[in-house]
Amino acid sequence: MALTGLLAMGAGTAVADEGMWTLDHLPAKQMQQRYGFTPSQRWIDLVQHAALRLAEGCTGSFVSANGLVMTNHHCANTCLSQLSKGREDYMSNGYIALKQEDEPKCPDVELNQLESIIDVTTQVNAATAGKTGAERVKAERAIDSRLEQSCVDGDAKTWRCDVITLYNGGRYALYKYRRYQDVRLVFAPEQSIAFFGGDPDNFNFPRYDLDVTFFRAYVDNKPASTPQFFKFSPQGPKAGDMTFVIGNPGQTQRGIPWVQLAAMRDARLVPFFGFLSELRGVLWQYGRAGAEQGKEAQEARFYIENSIKVFNGWLQTLADENFIEHKKKQDATLREWMAATPDRRAKYGDPWAELERAQQSSKDLRARYDMLEAGAGFNSRAGELFEYARTLVRAAAERGKPDGERLPQFREANLPAVEHTLESNAPVYPHYEQTLLSWSLEKLRQVLGADDSTVHEVLGKQSPDQLSQQLVSGTQLADPAVRKHLWDGGEKAVEASNDSMIKLVRQIDPEARQVRKAYEDEVTAPTDKADETIAKARFDREGMSSYPDATFTLRLSYGKVVGWNENGAPVPPFTYIGGLYKRATGADPFQLPDSWVKAEGKLNANTPMNFVTDNDIIGGNSGSAVIDREGHAVGLVFDGNIHSLGGDFVYDGSNNRTVAVDTAVLVESVRKVYNLPRLADELTQGHL
Amino acid sequence: MALTGLLAMGAGTAVADEGMWTLDHLPAKQMQQRYGFTPSQRWIDLVQHAALRLAEGCTGSFVSANGLVMTNHHCANTCLSQLSKGREDYMSNGYIALKQEDEPKCPDVELNQLESIIDVTTQVNAATAGKTGAERVKAERAIDSRLEQSCVDGDAKTWRCDVITLYNGGRYALYKYRRYQDVRLVFAPEQSIAFFGGDPDNFNFPRYDLDVTFFRAYVDNKPASTPQFFKFSPQGPKAGDMTFVIGNPGQTQRGIPWVQLAAMRDARLVPFFGFLSELRGVLWQYGRAGAEQGKEAQEARFYIENSIKVFNGWLQTLADENFIEHKKKQDATLREWMAATPDRRAKYGDPWAELERAQQSSKDLRARYDMLEAGAGFNSRAGELFEYARTLVRAAAERGKPDGERLPQFREANLPAVEHTLESNAPVYPHYEQTLLSWSLEKLRQVLGADDSTVHEVLGKQSPDQLSQQLVSGTQLADPAVRKHLWDGGEKAVEASNDSMIKLVRQIDPEARQVRKAYEDEVTAPTDKADETIAKARFDREGMSSYPDATFTLRLSYGKVVGWNENGAPVPPFTYIGGLYKRATGADPFQLPDSWVKAEGKLNANTPMNFVTDNDIIGGNSGSAVIDREGHAVGLVFDGNIHSLGGDFVYDGSNNRTVAVDTAVLVESVRKVYNLPRLADELTQGHL
Repeated sequence: MALTGLLAMGAGTAVADEGMWTLDHLPAKQMQQRYGFTPSQRWIDLVQHAALRLAEGCTGSFVSANGLVMTNHHCANTCLSQLSKGREDYMSNGYIALKQEDEPKCPDVELNQLESIIDVTTQVNAATAGKTGAERVKAERAIDSRLEQSCVDGDAKTWRCDVITLYNGGRYALYKYRRYQDVRLVFAPEQSIAFFGGDPDNFNFPRYDLDVTFFRAYVDNKPASTPQFFKFSPQGPKAGDMTFVIGNPGQTQRGIPWVQLAAMRDARLVPFFGFLSELRGVLWQYGRAGAEQGKEAQEARFYIENSIKVFNGWLQTLADENFIEHKKKQDATLREWMAATPDRRAKYGDPWAELERAQQSSKDLRARYDMLEAGAGFNSRAGELFEYARTLVRAAAERGKPDGERLPQFREANLPAVEHTLESNAPVYPHYEQTLLSWSLEKLRQVLGADDSTVHEVLGKQSPDQLSQQLVSGTQLADPAVRKHLWDGGEKAVEASNDSMIKLVRQIDPEARQVRKAYEDEVTAPTDKADETIAKARFDREGMSSYPDATFTLRLSYGKVVGWNENGAPVPPFTYIGGLYKRATGADPFQLPDSWVKAEGKLNANTPMNFVTDNDIIGGNSGSAVIDREGHAVGLVFDGNIHSLGGDFVYDGSNNRTVAVDTAVLVESVRKVYNLPRLADELTQGHL
Repeated sequence: MALTGLLAMGAGTAVADEGMWTLDHLPAKQMQQRYGFTPSQRWIDLVQHAALRLAEGCTGSFVSANGLVMTNHHCANTCLSQLSKGREDYMSNGYIALKQEDEPKCPDVELNQLESIIDVTTQVNAATAGKTGAERVKAERAIDSRLEQSCVDGDAKTWRCDVITLYNGGRYALYKYRRYQDVRLVFAPEQSIAFFGGDPDNFNFPRYDLDVTFFRAYVDNKPASTPQFFKFSPQGPKAGDMTFVIGNPGQTQRGIPWVQLAAMRDARLVPFFGFLSELRGVLWQYGRAGAEQGKEAQEARFYIENSIKVFNGWLQTLADENFIEHKKKQDATLREWMAATPDRRAKYGDPWAELERAQQSSKDLRARYDMLEAGAGFNSRAGELFEYARTLVRAAAERGKPDGERLPQFREANLPAVEHTLESNAPVYPHYEQTLLSWSLEKLRQVLGADDSTVHEVLGKQSPDQLSQQLVSGTQLADPAVRKHLWDGGEKAVEASNDSMIKLVRQIDPEARQVRKAYEDEVTAPTDKADETIAKARFDREGMSSYPDATFTLRLSYGKVVGWNENGAPVPPFTYIGGLYKRATGADPFQLPDSWVKAEGKLNANTPMNFVTDNDIIGGNSGSAVIDREGHAVGLVFDGNIHSLGGDFVYDGSNNRTVAVDTAVLVESVRKVYNLPRLADELTQGHL
């Protein structure tokens, strides 16, 4: 990785088109200087309300006044799989709602629209001042709960509030969202065009994907009224045009000290990379058994293959000697500054030593945490049953506690989301669950060791395969009614349950909670505290001139349509429909769906298909609109190029690129490939 | 990893019971000081001739005067799988030759007995002096070929000679071996007792494995006469006893500079760890489809699971900050010394800069090398067909060249071994090959990219699945007669062949050779040259007081029977038959075979089963005898504990342990579990 443009690193002055900016702290001066553009308050209001967060990850945007939402096909995977139960395979074959009554409800999709941001740094700091370890965890939970409850104000069905840590603890803010839980499916293309090129092309460019799905938000069984939306530009952008990406970048780690990154790489990333790679192998072979099995494994495979590519990119950056030296030097400079005067030493203490200790604890606890608390030993990564069981067992126990003492997931403000998940009518595949659970239990035994007392307790005299068969055949949690019964019945019902998965969770939960508590007290809390101190020192030294690391909250990034150089050769910023037909081989994943094969003669080969920009984005931005100065949608973000993967740690404007679907191909294909004038008209007119 | 006893690192004074010593340079003084033992020449002669190298990896030993060979069950995997074709499953169920005529020939096993070691440092240095890159590769090949040919002296069927690089280029030696190619199977226990505890227990202790197989070497269809053998001690050793391990440790990297290790970790180890993990997942799920599939995948799975555990251990050591600091400091000290005077600067130049350049080239070339030349993109890791095809194509081309210009594998002296492999009647499983080839072709496309011209050429418009089906159905290389025809027919036959795999290899071989040449010229040769210079400087500074890194040649390690401390608790050095029955759960991999279930009443529960010593060993030592001061066999090495994995880079005597089967349980079980007095008597009497 070239280190051009490495100055910012989450603090200091952002150069090039770097930065994922919060809407209350936009780099107006830089935008004006570089592009002659200053956003008006009206423009900012539009951007804030038209952009949406998909609660499970991803971004979406309102693109008509009647609740029409644009997001990625891969952000709709779960809905498409779930709706396919016993019917057509919508995930593979796409879905077209010819009329409004054909728009089916997605079981699990929830949209969040940002209502307001309130700075709560003073309150949070006051609550946690001088506290560390378990005491700090408790204090944080209490203040978060208090702030969130007061924000939701008794109406958790309508509002969602989250206390967000910004600048790694330099600032705290309360984000208030309006929730849309009735979200329906309007249109999805076939998987083979949405994800044309499949895993080989993923994170690559040139690219030819129609990675789009349209949802519609409903309120009271009617399309929601959404006057703030991005009007569709049927032409898309031109090379060099200024572009904005508005969305919810999930997580970056640019402001994190090297010691933390190094520990993450060695103690977490490398083992997890191996774990996911093996899981990918299992899913690959599982899916080859037949069409049904292929479908069952598809969603997990997509998520896992994507993660593996991301980790590959991360591992490359985290092994780059130049990058490491840069980070170490940056840390050393700040550290020296913090220790340079008695005043500073008294003010900051030695957060670096705290960090080292916390990382050592992380090393000791992490494998156990992953297996038991994160549930990797019970197929939490690729299955559903364990998660259902644990949610029910924990909810029963937590709901009886005062709000501020609960695990965050079960705070009153979050319960509607939890209940929503449990109500899902998504299918559960027993053979699939059993296979993956068997593999996971093997991992449990491998990672914790065959002589571990928990492993002994869980497996007894059984093999992972025997136990997984017993667990899957002995549970009824695949049935939403059974889950509802246990949810409604609370602690009593859960304790009386003879369900095998519930019993498994009851058996391991005391230790899982204990490991979680140890991890929170000995790793998370001291790390947070140290990071906060370091972030404050950085503010004291450098001022708050930059953007905070990404936190899956709404951010604006500015940039332009521009290619890059790959091994000395220029990569042009656009691909065209004509190129798609040239790339198609007829064999998966380069096989076009019939609809596109048939439509070839009707389509303009020069219609732009995908394009790249130098906007600074990261995972979570999937489904974000690319908009222009007028606030019109010109594209739909669905990926980054391979160089964007290092963006988790550092933005390199020379080759980090956002990859988007052009709005031109969206309009063209909705009209000519899918013959859906209803939707094409709504897109171009802005209303039903 | 604690850094106790870290002083030696492949140079300097070895402390504790560290060291894998060549027989011509034993640490007599240290052994005398620490144990009051000095080996006599007679003892050394015995050790040299009783110990054997299995050409495909592993060690064995003569344990009777009639060619009886003791090695590990896991070293006999290939033979057991291959002999099982269409018959009983010997790999799972074991094999017992009740009489001599029942001893079947192993298709692929070759034993090498060390005849002599001759120092050829002067000759090699003279031939390569001042040369680098392609010139050095050529000169090395020429001198190696000349030395080996003269050593074999026209009788390559009887002798095998290898020029071995010792001390990372500080010294070169010619190893001359007598070959035994007629090796037959005498006895193997069931997989479930040989590998009791399976992957979970692998590299762990306490342990309860009967990881043994007995072969017999034949000459002229009669049991070989082998007067030099390790007499069996039916009692095994006692705690604290001095022990020796004599065998062929495969590879250590203790004398390698940090820059090389760091590059290996990041550019090779981490990606390969992911590759093998995924392959493991595919094999795991493949093997679950049924008993037949389980058998087909078993051998590759064992090898891969073992490798993954090894890599896990390596990655831990290579991420250990203390270890890294130690290595860096050691390198820096030597580097400063080399640059301290004008004389030294003139003598050594700057090999460190050469190393850095070579590592950069490795980074650029490695993925292509792995996929095309190492064959990972064509299932070289878990299949047979590609390797057969490539051997045939290359042999045909290479055999026409002067010996010194051939690829080393095809030098005249090595041809008997190559032919032996091609003659194998080992089964090839088409569905298995097709599955794994499909997966490998996917990896090829993933690693090189869908737009790579070679990928385009290989796949054309086909998917990996389509192409792999075509390749496997279009090849007849599973048939040894077809291979023989192509081998005998040479270049003409190969060129005329319409066999799909031969055609594939012909298609990719020019590029594979080119990548190999680039890698050898730009990575291997400059690295060798730099390492050699560094090794010489180290000799100049410190003298040749230590042992060379392991090179899969005969080494002696001394030590004692001793446990260690794990998290403060002592791990005793012995396990007993009684403990085996306690650990058995009835479920795989803790399920005992029927023979052991039935024999429980007849066995003495206090018979030692496995034990640990602090002998310094590494992979390749599998199957080595543990002997006592009298040269009697007291155990059979089959593993190391988890701390032994770091031994590739550094020996830590505080917890690095060798794991061995006790000879007591071998005699007891051969007699009482397997009712095989013929073998038990031969073991205790030393002859048939």
